[in-house]
Formats: sequence, structure tokens, C-alpha cells
Amino acid sequence: MEQVKLLGAWPSPFAYRVIWALKLKGVSYEYIDENIFNKSELLLQYNPVYKKIPVLVHGGKPVAESIVILEYIEDTWPQNPLLPEDPYERAMARFWTKFEEDKSQTFFAFFRTVGEQQEKAVKEARELLGIVEEHGLGDKKFFGGDKIGLVDIAFGWIAGWLEVMQKAVGVKLLEAESFPRLQAWIKNFREVPVIKENLPDYDGMLAYFRCRREMFIASATSHA
Amino acid sequence: MEQVKLLGAWPSPFAYRVIWALKLKGVSYEYIDENIFNKSELLLQYNPVYKKIPVLVHGGKPVAESIVILEYIEDTWPQNPLLPEDPYERAMARFWTKFEEDKSQTFFAFFRTVGEQQEKAVKEARELLGIVEEHGLGDKKFFGGDKIGLVDIAFGWIAGWLEVMQKAVGVKLLEAESFPRLQAWIKNFREVPVIKENLPDYDGMLAYFRCRREMFIASATSHA
Repeated sequence: MEQVKLLGAWPSPFAYRVIWALKLKGVSYEYIDENIFNKSELLLQYNPVYKKIPVLVHGGKPVAESIVILEYIEDTWPQNPLLPEDPYERAMARFWTKFEEDKSQTFFAFFRTVGEQQEKAVKEARELLGIVEEHGLGDKKFFGGDKIGLVDIAFGWIAGWLEVMQKAVGVKLLEAESFPRLQAWIKNFREVPVIKENLPDYDGMLAYFRCRREMFIASATSHA
Repeated sequence: MEQVKLLGAWPSPFAYRVIWALKLKGVSYEYIDENIFNKSELLLQYNPVYKKIPVLVHGGKPVAESIVILEYIEDTWPQNPLLPEDPYERAMARFWTKFEEDKSQTFFAFFRTVGEQQEKAVKEARELLGIVEEHGLGDKKFFGGDKIGLVDIAFGWIAGWLEVMQKAVGVKLLEAESFPRLQAWIKNFREVPVIKENLPDYDGMLAYFRCRREMFIASATSHA
């Protein structure tokens, strides 16, 4: 077995995507926590193009970009598949995964903005959540049907990060009565043993996101 | 054999990606040309999320997003593979394909902007081309080695569209002496028979891109 290392940065949901996939596959790995405010030489060497976590290093060879890493994990360790076998269902999984990636700036804009910009960001993010609920999830337990898979992992931040980010900002995208299918999915997702056992600590996240939020407010105000 | 249809819009490089992949696989299909200024009911029905071409319809079931379509084609018709077999090489192919996707707004910004904004856009696009040349292509004939594959198809616009877009705008990203490896790749790519026989007509493109450029200038000036 070649050695597997993961460069992450607590509590990045992008790093958790890789953690969940490795755990679902039963692959052991060494975790290395990077300081995003002072990146290591190792990270710059392994990901010279983006200089970002997560990076998976397998047998000395680095793979960057969380979704590229997930496809690599799927190709390398086929047990407990993250993608369905049927080519059309695979395409649907990749479509929604790409949707999440393409829209992630819009999803997270409520956390980075203030005032009118933030109101607009909340409205746009809710529209996207509506599209995911209606066209992507429907009445299924998970995005791919009965089992957790690639799309669930890509949207995992909705189940594990959104509530605490909302609390840190004092704004709600998901109200108690809105998006009932997504709310049901959040429960289903969090009940999967590998997810339940691998979510970042709530209080730690809240403190961290409050600090990040203050940084964004300071930056938004200084540009106003 | 289930029927294959492609909804495209001449001369979209995103639609040509799908055309090349289908031709490389030897899959026959019916091509339907959409008017992007007046989208058909068919397109809105097949791609309600993005309302964009290309859409591949196979046995009545639609797949949208050009790269998702290419992965679907690869999964459905395995002959003449677009992706290597080795998981690490597959990850590298997906990494550079995703790089192209993530940066495409920046690549094409020179076409949409004027004045100082355009100068900045040209500088940024050249930086990206430098990264592709150095880290992505290197001294290989194609991105994956000796054979055309997914990454080449994703960057196909550099080989088939960039020159005419530059001419329509009157700006050069690729100078005669710059990016020698990319220039060699352009030649190699255009010499592949399926590519050579399936490139949009130069004069038609020039007229079309001149018109699009006028639209962007009018829009940029009215906002100034």
C-alpha cells in the first residue's frame, strides 16, 4: 500500500469532502493541517497552480482540487462507489456537482458582504437552493437515490457548515419552514455514520467563523 | 442504437467539443442549431437550469454542460478513450480541464472589455496561458502525451477560435514568438483529422465575432 496524506485546513468543508470519501472507502491516511494565513513550502510545492488545500498525496504524487480528488479516489479505490454505474446517472451526478462548484461564490456571498449587497446575496443563494431542491434533489433520500454519493459530499457544507455560518453572520438562508426536501436531506446526510463521526466541532467553528466574519466586515467597510 | 441529438449554436467552441468527441468515437448524431438570441422551447425543456447549449440528447434523455457531456460520452462509448486508464493521469486530465473551465471568464475577458479593463484582461489571460504552457502542457505533443484527449478538447478554442477572436478585436494574446509549446500544440491539434475536418469556417466566424465585439463595445461604452 502506498502512503496517503491529506493536506487540509480546519474546518474547511473542501477538506472534509476528502476526509469523508477516504473514510467511506476505508482508506487510512495521514492528515496534515495547514495554516491558511501562512502556507507551508510543502503546500506550495504540491499545488503550485492554486496554492490551496485540499491536496491528496498518494505515493508521493499530489492531486489538488476537491472534486478532482474525489474522482481520483473513486478511480483508485472502487469499493463503496461514490458514483453510480449507469452512465446517465453518472452524468446527472457530475452535473449537480459542477453546479455546486460553479455557484459556490454565490452560495457563500452572504458571509462576505454587508448591507444591500448582503440582501442581494441572500436572495440569490435562496434561488439557488430552490433550484437544487426542485431539480437536483426532488423526493429522494440522497441526491443519487438511497445511498450517499458524490453530490451529497459536494453539498455537505449545507448540512454541516451553513447553520453555524448563519449564526456567525446573523442571517438565515434556510428558515425552519423553507426547503423541506433539503431539510430532510440534511438529517439523512448527518445520520450516515461516517458523516456523523466526522464533522468539525460546533463551538470551534462558531468562534472561527465569527472571526472570519469580522475580517470580511472590516474589509467591506474599508472599501465603502 | 438509441438516437443521439446535439443541440448546438454555430460557432460555439463548447458545442464543437461535443462534435469532436462524438466524431472521435464514431457516434452518428443529428445536429440541431439553436438561435442564442431566441432560444427554442426544446432547449429550455432540456436544460431548465442553465438554458444553454450544448445539450446532448441520447435516447430522449438530456445531458447539459460540455465537460459533463464529454465524461458521459466517455462512459457510454469507451472506444478511442478520451481519458487515460491510469487513475493519476486521469486526475491530471481532470485538473487541467477544470482549470480551463474555472478560468474561462478570464481567458475571454479581452473580447468583452475595452480600454484599461482590456489591458488588464490581456495581461491576466497571458499569465494563464503561461501557467498552461509550463505546468499543463510541458514538452508533450498533446496534454495527455501522444494522443488527443479530454484536455486538448477543452482547450480546443485556443487552436480554433483564438486567432479569429484576436483579429475581430485587434488585440493579440499569442504573439508569433510567445508560448512556443502552445504554438506547437495548436499545430498538432489542428492536424488531427477529426479536428481538421470539423472546424468552423474562418470567414463566417470573423463576421460573427466582429458583430459580437460591436455588441460588447456598445454595452461597455453605455456603462462608462
